Amino acid sequence: MDLKDQRIDYTKFELMEDHAGSDPFALFKRWFNEASTIEIEPNVMIISTSHNSQPETRVVLLKELVDEQFVFYTNYNSRKGQAIQDNPHVSLLFFWQQHQRQVRINGIATKVPEQQSDDYFKSRPIESQIGAIASTQSSILEDRSQLELRMEELKNYYKFHPIERPAHWGGYQVKPMHFEFWQGRTSRLHDRICFDNESGSWNRKRLYP
Amino acid sequence: MDLKDQRIDYTKFELMEDHAGSDPFALFKRWFNEASTIEIEPNVMIISTSHNSQPETRVVLLKELVDEQFVFYTNYNSRKGQAIQDNPHVSLLFFWQQHQRQVRINGIATKVPEQQSDDYFKSRPIESQIGAIASTQSSILEDRSQLELRMEELKNYYKFHPIERPAHWGGYQVKPMHFEFWQGRTSRLHDRICFDNESGSWNRKRLYP
Repeated sequence: MDLKDQRIDYTKFELMEDHAGSDPFALFKRWFNEASTIEIEPNVMIISTSHNSQPETRVVLLKELVDEQFVFYTNYNSRKGQAIQDNPHVSLLFFWQQHQRQVRINGIATKVPEQQSDDYFKSRPIESQIGAIASTQSSILEDRSQLELRMEELKNYYKFHPIERPAHWGGYQVKPMHFEFWQGRTSRLHDRICFDNESGSWNRKRLYP
Repeated sequence: MDLKDQRIDYTKFELMEDHAGSDPFALFKRWFNEASTIEIEPNVMIISTSHNSQPETRVVLLKELVDEQFVFYTNYNSRKGQAIQDNPHVSLLFFWQQHQRQVRINGIATKVPEQQSDDYFKSRPIESQIGAIASTQSSILEDRSQLELRMEELKNYYKFHPIERPAHWGGYQVKPMHFEFWQGRTSRLHDRICFDNESGSWNRKRLYP
């Protein structure tokens, strides 16, 4: 498979210091809002963990940015949950293709308070709630029909019983220590502006592309 | 920023065992070709490294899939190059949003032969060649105008001199040891089919979503 001639020149925008400002969260929100006007799912958030030096990467959905932390929900017993338990250093990536932009974040993941997970769990459609209960995420499933049968059983059960968040399902919040804002530019001379958290204040730098 | 109510139900496709087959490369190519009919840049490849247990994640472009290895090009002195030198375990992610599909790969990165890097370098537009020479990737750039000035100087210089690939720029090839093919399904009951390289043959498993 040869893709050597597939190239797009990135010419839509630029990222200069006056646009970047001094607050990475403000810039993130500005870019997020711009992405929201055109992307199917602007809150697609790619999260990588590192477990015994093996990075692993998958898509989750950003559900909140609150108190300067990025929140998503998952099964705490999943592979990513196990990886975070051993090593809370994670990286996040937002890639907004229509704007030819990336935001790269390095940070630390911790569990959100239980009440917050309860509240979000309750807000989900009931089929997703039951799906979270039915699935022992990342373990081996012999046959899809097993899962579908279990879903049907649980759907019947929960017609007559109150549904509660299972203890193994909840949120993580990621506290950023480093941001990079990447704007694709022509001839691969992309703009890269970083913010590092140094003793509580954000230090801005431009990097060579 | 509250995105809790932003949700899309994934209903377009399913991934059953008979479609998955027994060869992860064949399945990858099939999905890639399908993505190519609709995605802006189907060869967007998200690569994560792990350096001192800190994962880092960014977008590169897949340039070849040859001899069952995924090839991309970069600056060997970049942050990702340094991370790979210390720890060649990487993860790759393809996310094809229109088809609600992910392919997740864990593998080992090595440099491609020099001749292969030379050949690809020569095939690039001259502005990108000069861009690769002008940029000391990932180091601090005081001001964008410095880089632009350097580009202009180099463009003038290379009007009269042959251009050669700099030694610090070239390809990596990633040899997969693990694949996961993820197909979004309704009520978060996604299909996940993995292939693990076990003594040279691929062992297929389905995982709970």
